[in-house]
Amino acid sequence: MLAPHHDGSPLHVSTQTPALGEGVRVRLRVPAGSTGPAGLGLSALEAVSVRSNPNHEPRFAPAELLGERGGWDWWQAEVEVENPVHGYRFLLTGPDGAGNPAQRWLNAAGLHDTEPLDSEDFKLVASPEGIGAPPEWMASSVLYQVFPDRFARSAAAEDRPLPSWAIAAAWGDPVQLTPPARSTQFYGGDLDGVTERLDHLGALGITLLYLTPVFAGRSNHRYDATSFDAVDSLLGGDEALVRLVEAAHARGIRVIGDLTSNHSGDAHEWFLAAHHHPEAPESDFYYWRDADNDGYESWLGVPSLPKFNWASGELRRRFIEGPDSVVARWLKPPFNLDGWRIDVANMTGRLGAEDLNAEVRQTIRRTMVEVNPDTILLGESTNDAASDFQGDAWHGAMTYTTFTRPLWSWLMNPGSQAAGGIGFAGNRVPVFTGRQFFEAHNRFVSGFPWRTRLGTLNALNTHDTPRFATSALPGAVPVALGLSVTLPGIPVVFAGDEFGLTGEDGEASRTPIPWALLEGEPATDAAALAQQTTRLYAELIALRRSQPALNGGGMRWLHIGDDVLVFVRESATNSVLVAAGRGEFSVRIPRAALGGALRDANAPQPLFGAEVDGSHGVALAASDTEITLASAGAGFAAWALSGVETP
Amino acid sequence: MLAPHHDGSPLHVSTQTPALGEGVRVRLRVPAGSTGPAGLGLSALEAVSVRSNPNHEPRFAPAELLGERGGWDWWQAEVEVENPVHGYRFLLTGPDGAGNPAQRWLNAAGLHDTEPLDSEDFKLVASPEGIGAPPEWMASSVLYQVFPDRFARSAAAEDRPLPSWAIAAAWGDPVQLTPPARSTQFYGGDLDGVTERLDHLGALGITLLYLTPVFAGRSNHRYDATSFDAVDSLLGGDEALVRLVEAAHARGIRVIGDLTSNHSGDAHEWFLAAHHHPEAPESDFYYWRDADNDGYESWLGVPSLPKFNWASGELRRRFIEGPDSVVARWLKPPFNLDGWRIDVANMTGRLGAEDLNAEVRQTIRRTMVEVNPDTILLGESTNDAASDFQGDAWHGAMTYTTFTRPLWSWLMNPGSQAAGGIGFAGNRVPVFTGRQFFEAHNRFVSGFPWRTRLGTLNALNTHDTPRFATSALPGAVPVALGLSVTLPGIPVVFAGDEFGLTGEDGEASRTPIPWALLEGEPATDAAALAQQTTRLYAELIALRRSQPALNGGGMRWLHIGDDVLVFVRESATNSVLVAAGRGEFSVRIPRAALGGALRDANAPQPLFGAEVDGSHGVALAASDTEITLASAGAGFAAWALSGVETP
Repeated sequence: MLAPHHDGSPLHVSTQTPALGEGVRVRLRVPAGSTGPAGLGLSALEAVSVRSNPNHEPRFAPAELLGERGGWDWWQAEVEVENPVHGYRFLLTGPDGAGNPAQRWLNAAGLHDTEPLDSEDFKLVASPEGIGAPPEWMASSVLYQVFPDRFARSAAAEDRPLPSWAIAAAWGDPVQLTPPARSTQFYGGDLDGVTERLDHLGALGITLLYLTPVFAGRSNHRYDATSFDAVDSLLGGDEALVRLVEAAHARGIRVIGDLTSNHSGDAHEWFLAAHHHPEAPESDFYYWRDADNDGYESWLGVPSLPKFNWASGELRRRFIEGPDSVVARWLKPPFNLDGWRIDVANMTGRLGAEDLNAEVRQTIRRTMVEVNPDTILLGESTNDAASDFQGDAWHGAMTYTTFTRPLWSWLMNPGSQAAGGIGFAGNRVPVFTGRQFFEAHNRFVSGFPWRTRLGTLNALNTHDTPRFATSALPGAVPVALGLSVTLPGIPVVFAGDEFGLTGEDGEASRTPIPWALLEGEPATDAAALAQQTTRLYAELIALRRSQPALNGGGMRWLHIGDDVLVFVRESATNSVLVAAGRGEFSVRIPRAALGGALRDANAPQPLFGAEVDGSHGVALAASDTEITLASAGAGFAAWALSGVETP
Repeated sequence: MLAPHHDGSPLHVSTQTPALGEGVRVRLRVPAGSTGPAGLGLSALEAVSVRSNPNHEPRFAPAELLGERGGWDWWQAEVEVENPVHGYRFLLTGPDGAGNPAQRWLNAAGLHDTEPLDSEDFKLVASPEGIGAPPEWMASSVLYQVFPDRFARSAAAEDRPLPSWAIAAAWGDPVQLTPPARSTQFYGGDLDGVTERLDHLGALGITLLYLTPVFAGRSNHRYDATSFDAVDSLLGGDEALVRLVEAAHARGIRVIGDLTSNHSGDAHEWFLAAHHHPEAPESDFYYWRDADNDGYESWLGVPSLPKFNWASGELRRRFIEGPDSVVARWLKPPFNLDGWRIDVANMTGRLGAEDLNAEVRQTIRRTMVEVNPDTILLGESTNDAASDFQGDAWHGAMTYTTFTRPLWSWLMNPGSQAAGGIGFAGNRVPVFTGRQFFEAHNRFVSGFPWRTRLGTLNALNTHDTPRFATSALPGAVPVALGLSVTLPGIPVVFAGDEFGLTGEDGEASRTPIPWALLEGEPATDAAALAQQTTRLYAELIALRRSQPALNGGGMRWLHIGDDVLVFVRESATNSVLVAAGRGEFSVRIPRAALGGALRDANAPQPLFGAEVDGSHGVALAASDTEITLASAGAGFAAWALSGVETP
């Protein structure tokens, strides 16, 4: 796997936040050697150039050889960022084995011996006017997702009257999977409950709390908002949100909310005003099927979720545009949310021949920047997300293509079912080799600019999916979470994962958190599992947070096997070697094939899992000539290496 | 190469011109067999479904097994076209060799064992309002490209005074490659000269004549127009164009013109009015660098080609919008052009943060439809064109990624240079195997909807490139032209190709046509070559025109070797087997691996090149069990087969 390498990290790109018109230096490193460079299939490397594509017309700039460091020849060229998304790729030329002129192209998807697609170019993003780059803190965030009805109940929750739609549940009751209880079973978790449990988040090392909707709806999930103007009184109202955000901020934890830009609930004040009232100012907020505002478009045909029509200027003004809009209001004092996750971002503004998605997402971000640029904007787009995530608004994607589904396919018991929002066809999890994990992951991340990749969620599961632990291979949870904290992107903990909870579908996963399991010495297997898993989560999150290379560093694959994946995250200050396997494996990698810090005869320093006596360890044996990684079963481990030396 | 197959042709799709909201039946054929279907890697096929992506949200529809015909199991599902470009792909599920659940996805790029990208979906295109589908005649066109200054000179040309910028050349003079003569050397070809040579086009079998610009400029290429309101008097003026189009139409030959939507000349009446005149009505037609309209943006920095600013409403009104615009005027009587080729379509309307390309191209097409929907619109986009060519305006691309560059790399002498517009980095032609030809071709065509693919130009070369014949491998011209007339897309003859002319770059290729070489018995080698090559062109064009399967039929690859490519074009009425090789080859293909008409023990009927005694023949030996295709050198051949039977 020693091959020419580039990624969007600071080792290879002179600025992460170029301006339009700025010259950016981009660097390629090529294995040094007197014969043809390794991994290239050329008998000699004659020249390197950078091809970019201003205004859709190719332009080549020659790269200059800066010199050799640590076994790499470093080449550099300057690229002027002429368009807001400025693609570039490297062209390496020289004779092939037969002496014929040949080309190799390196782009975000890898190395190619024929011309590649523009969509897989590496990309520099010059933030559009009023949009801005994501805040620096985004890429080093560790996210914790809370579904408020099921997280924790404060004492005040006991006194609140139950709304008419709700079916009361006691905290320990099992989750009901059959409608109508499926969405109306009500446990009464509230925001003060979350505030009271911030110690737990602090102990895990969480830096970013994501709350699914806190506006009132007529369901336990609240994605059917009745208003965006007030926090649900069942959650403690506006004041409870203020208390929560203040307490979180005091601990260094940021908080983001959840907005439904695709639809409201059918009891939303705007919908009620418009339904059967064509004369209402809110009439054009929705898509009506008839002149008297009776039938209407809705999310996947679900009548309780009428779809917004973003052609409406008034809807934009109230909801997303300017400092008095809903989007702005909750980012300002006294609420001070640190950003939004947008629900069904992929369908927003799209219907038939109309596609207003780009306008809506950019308006949302412009408004956010206006009131507080130090906020983030994540978009839900659970399938191929790249076309909408080119840096013009969404900072990162809540998607399942890049990590979640490939992970399940690699680490799940064969034959597993996975119902609901995770999006496996027919609810069946296909079985992947490590090669397939890599190919699926690589294919979907290579469409993102590097900075979008860093803001994209590496979720084992979410509130919409079964829990990963439910059907995972033996020992696979540390492997999955290990990949989540070490691959580029934001690690995600869906509340309860750290208790070792399971759940067969998105609904069953919304279990009330069994807090008692963490108290005292474990008295049950469930308590032992919860305490052990919580420790695992805290350790792996600490690994992530402690290593600069894991927070924005480069990404280089070293070995892709059916049962084991090995890669290195690299920065100028340190690097982290990662091995993740799903079963017994032993991989011998010649040092000459490793490059950088691993090329020399030093021994990597254990960071996590670097022992074989534990349940999830990997043994590393380092000789002068090779490194051997071995495990008797599923294992995840990480080692520290020195940083990457550059000319 | 027997594998599940689908393409956008009528065998597999119930309509080529669906309306928004229409249900379209799409069909997949899978090799029939009691064990797992061939080419799939599953031990059994349990189910087939179609995944489409309305509003960017996946939706699955089960496919139904219609039955078996000719060795294929045919599956069918209905897809509702919900968006103007409605992507779909097939999902095939069953156990893999180990009995684990596995998925195979078939999309326009091929078969995948992990989830593929949306951009490579098969696509149904519902024509946007006012845009319409391309006319039916497009897909069966054979295009002939004329560069008017170099094609033919009528008697009237003798009397025309030379403009001040021009350097006079006699018809037989060599082309000057050094500026300023490079663009000002003037041979005086004119439109009546073209009219007088329509017999030649008729004899070749041409159906579509493409004229590079006919508006006056200050260069021999006329891409620097001084006005779009009159045909250059040096070409014979408006009346000569009327005569040419009338005479061409009388022979069943359509005619398209060439418009520069990216720029005008710096002597254009609009530019002259605006330059140094900020108060002029034309001031906002261009991008000025200063308040007094002095410096300006231009095409690749060439000052004689100032770039249009399409934010100008007045520019749109004069040039592209409505029945009085330039775009409309030349499609109406008395001119009656049959469409436009748009120069530098890829850069049009793009500069820095501004991208008005979609608005401009759609406005052009809406205007065309308004005055004559029976016209075509081709766009020059010589690199990765797919993102702009999704059926919302351009019908087809003049691009070099899908055919021209891969062809050169496969069929050119190793070490060849290719200067100028063909776009090889460093002007060097990399050497490809047949596998690389296929991969490059397949990668770039799979981003197009099927109907765009049928309208895209398969050019060996154009007025902007060296001529293919210049450095082609021995015997490669029939192979290249053979592929041009048999692969999906529009075959292109750049005037002079059929004379066997050569040219080292785009300028050198603009040779005045040596008409005398076609007259009488050949007295020179050049004459012999011209007469022989003209016959070859006529034969291969006749092949194309005579076979329904070559004009919109399906496309299925049978063998991809380093030196030989074999494929079949298929329709309900007939099919055509094609073999194209660059050197000695012998390929044995078991009949069982061929499918369809080739599976049975019939012998394909020779259409072209099916003998080995000629210079470009391929021998076919058919036994009950296999077919052998062999050649002692470069060869191209085609055979007729029966049509594909469907349930």
